[in-house]
Amino acid sequence: LKSIITLTTDFGSRDGYVGTIKGVILSINPKAEIIDISHQIPPQNVLAGAFCLFNSCTFFPEGTIHIAVVDPEVGGKRKGILIQTERYSLIGPDNGVFSPFLRTEKIKRMISLTNPKYFLGKVSATFHSRDIFAPVAAYLSLGVEAKEFGPALSEIARLNLPSIEKRGGKIIGRIIHIDNFGNLVSNVTAQELSKIKKFKMKVKNRIISRLSKTYSEVGKGKILAYQGSSGFLEVGIREGNARLKLDAIIGDKIEIQI
Amino acid sequence: LKSIITLTTDFGSRDGYVGTIKGVILSINPKAEIIDISHQIPPQNVLAGAFCLFNSCTFFPEGTIHIAVVDPEVGGKRKGILIQTERYSLIGPDNGVFSPFLRTEKIKRMISLTNPKYFLGKVSATFHSRDIFAPVAAYLSLGVEAKEFGPALSEIARLNLPSIEKRGGKIIGRIIHIDNFGNLVSNVTAQELSKIKKFKMKVKNRIISRLSKTYSEVGKGKILAYQGSSGFLEVGIREGNARLKLDAIIGDKIEIQI
Amino acid sequence: LKSIITLTTDFGSRDGYVGTIKGVILSINPKAEIIDISHQIPPQNVLAGAFCLFNSCTFFPEGTIHIAVVDPEVGGKRKGILIQTERYSLIGPDNGVFSPFLRTEKIKRMISLTNPKYFLGKVSATFHSRDIFAPVAAYLSLGVEAKEFGPALSEIARLNLPSIEKRGGKIIGRIIHIDNFGNLVSNVTAQELSKIKKFKMKVKNRIISRLSKTYSEVGKGKILAYQGSSGFLEVGIREGNARLKLDAIIGDKIEIQI
Repeated sequence: LKSIITLTTDFGSRDGYVGTIKGVILSINPKAEIIDISHQIPPQNVLAGAFCLFNSCTFFPEGTIHIAVVDPEVGGKRKGILIQTERYSLIGPDNGVFSPFLRTEKIKRMISLTNPKYFLGKVSATFHSRDIFAPVAAYLSLGVEAKEFGPALSEIARLNLPSIEKRGGKIIGRIIHIDNFGNLVSNVTAQELSKIKKFKMKVKNRIISRLSKTYSEVGKGKILAYQGSSGFLEVGIREGNARLKLDAIIGDKIEIQI
Repeated sequence: LKSIITLTTDFGSRDGYVGTIKGVILSINPKAEIIDISHQIPPQNVLAGAFCLFNSCTFFPEGTIHIAVVDPEVGGKRKGILIQTERYSLIGPDNGVFSPFLRTEKIKRMISLTNPKYFLGKVSATFHSRDIFAPVAAYLSLGVEAKEFGPALSEIARLNLPSIEKRGGKIIGRIIHIDNFGNLVSNVTAQELSKIKKFKMKVKNRIISRLSKTYSEVGKGKILAYQGSSGFLEVGIREGNARLKLDAIIGDKIEIQI
Repeated sequence: LKSIITLTTDFGSRDGYVGTIKGVILSINPKAEIIDISHQIPPQNVLAGAFCLFNSCTFFPEGTIHIAVVDPEVGGKRKGILIQTERYSLIGPDNGVFSPFLRTEKIKRMISLTNPKYFLGKVSATFHSRDIFAPVAAYLSLGVEAKEFGPALSEIARLNLPSIEKRGGKIIGRIIHIDNFGNLVSNVTAQELSKIKKFKMKVKNRIISRLSKTYSEVGKGKILAYQGSSGFLEVGIREGNARLKLDAIIGDKIEIQI
C-alpha cells in the first residue's frame, strides 16, 4: 500500500525548502505520496501550526504520517519526536505542535529521534526537517519499526491552548485563527455551544443575536455567527470579509451570554 | 488506470482546507492523483475561477475529474452538480463556474448531487467541498456511476461572461484577468483577432499599432499586444509589468480599430 | 520505476499556469510524479531561480528530471535546452538558470530542443514551458532518447554569479537571497568560512563577532551569523526576522575580516 506523508510547515513556498524535503523523502521511498497541508503557517507560530494540523489531519486515512515543522528552537535542546497514535504517526519538534491533536487521539508510543542511522548524513543546525524529520518519515513509511529511531519518552511538551473562561454569566473566548476568507475562528467548541439556550454574543462591539446554520440565513454583507467546519464558533460576513469589516485580529475577545 | 482529480478553489494555501480535501479524497480512493490548478482565485469571484479553469482544464487527459470550488452561496439553495462531458467530469456548485468550459465541450449528462450515501457523514453548512464534492469525486474515480449521485438536471446556472461590443468601427473589449507577470488578458478572442486587417488598439490611453508574435519584437520595457497562450488578446511589457506601468485593473476598457 | 519531474518557475500560484503544465505532462506520461520546488521565483529573475534550484535539486533521486522556467526571453532567439548530467536531466531555457548546478555536476550531453515531434501541437510564442519543456520532459520520462529531441550543443549560456572579492584584509560578499524567515543568505561559501580563524563580520553597520552553530547560542531577538543549510554564510535573528530588523535587501554588502 502507498504511504501518505503530510507536511505542515512555516516555510512558505518561495524558497524551495519544501521541494528539498520532498526530494529527501522520495530518495528514500520513491513510492511515498506527499501531501501539503500548509506551508503558510505564520513563521515560528507553533500554536497556529497546531491549530491547522488539528483541523486537517483527522481527515486523512489511517496510517498517514504527519510531519509538522514550526520549529523556533531548531538546533537547540528541544528533541525531535515520533508519536504514534492508534491512527497516525506524528513527526516533528517536541514543542507542543501536536498538542490539540493528542486530545482526540489515543497515544501508543512516543519516541525521541536519536538514531543517526536514519538521519541524512551530516545534520545541519538549522534544517532538521530536511536532515531528520523527512528521512525518519520516509524510513517509517518503508516499515522501519518505531523503536529503531530512538528511546521511548514518557513526557512530551504540551502547548497551553487558550481556553475559555466563564464569569458574570458569560463565556469569554478568543479569536484563535482568521482564515483566507476573513472568517474569525474562536476557541468556543461545539460542546459549549450546544449548552446555550438563547444565543447572544458580542465581538468588537457588535452584537449577534442568533446562531446561524448557513451564510444564506443573513443578507449579503451582514454579520453572522455559526459553528464552523472545524467545530468551533466562527464569525463571518456573508460574501464579505469579517476581519476587514470588524478590524479583528487574533486574540480579540468574544463574549457569549450563557 | 490512475484517476486524476484537479482542484480549483479560492481557499488560499494558509488554512489547511486544501489538505483536508485531499485527505478526504485519499481516504476513499488512495490511488487518486490530485493536482492543484489554483487555490488563489480571488475569494468568491466565480468569474475568475471560471476563467482559470477554462484556461487550464483542457490540457488534462481524458477522464480527468475537475473540482471547482468558488462558492459564495455554500449552504444556501444552490445545488451541487456533476457535469459529464465527452472528455471530463466536472464537480462543484451550480453557480456557473463551469460556464466557459461548457462552450467548448459536449455535455453528456448533468446530475444534482443529492445522494447522502456518497457524502462525508454529517454535512456541514460551510464546507461542501470537504463534505460533498471531494467524496463524490473520489467515489466517481472508483467507478461509481454518475446516476448514483442524484437525479438528472436539464438546466444549470450560466455565468454572463463579459462579451465584446462592436460600435463606431471599433471592438470594445475588457481586461478580464491580470496574471502573475502583470500581463493584461482581454476578452477579445483569436477568432476576432484573425478578422482584423490593420491592427491598432488603445488601452489606458496608450496606442499600440502592431500585433506582435513574441516579446522580443519590442525593446525591453516597451508595451506590446499579442495573442496570449490562452488564445485571447493580451497586453504586456517586455521584461516588465503592464499592470503596474499602466495602472490597469480588471474591467478596464480596450478599443481595437476594425 | 516512477519518474520524478520537478518544477521551478516564476509563474506564481494564482493563474493556473502550473496546473496546465502538469496536465500536459500527465497527458503524455500518466505515471510521472510531479514535484513543485518553487513557483514564487521573483518574475524574470533568472539568478534567483538558479539559486533556488541549486539548493534543492541535489536532494532528489538520481534520474530526476528538473524543469526550470524563468524565461524573460521566451519566444525570442534563446534556445530551449536539455542538459544531462551523471545524475539528472535539466530542461528549460538556455539563459544560465542551470549555471550553479553545473558547477557541481558532471555534464554528459547538452541538446538543443528543436524536434517538433515532441512539442505540443502548435507552439505559442509566450508559453514554451507548456508547449515545449513539459512535453519534452514527459517524453524523456517515457524513455525517449536525448538525441531524439535535437542536435547536440557545445556551448550553453552561463550566468555571471555574484562572486566574493578579497581586498584590504577583508572578504567582501553580498546578500544573494532572503528566505521566508527573513534570513539573509550571502554568497560566502563554507569553503571560505573554513579558512577564517577569528570570525568577525559586518552587515548593515552591525558587527557580529562569532560564527554560531545554532540559533540557540544567542538570546531571543539577537542577531547571529551561521553557516546555513545551503552551505552559505547566513545572518539571522533568533525567533525574529533579520530582513525587517536590519532593513536588508538583496545586493547588500557584507564584510568579513580575514
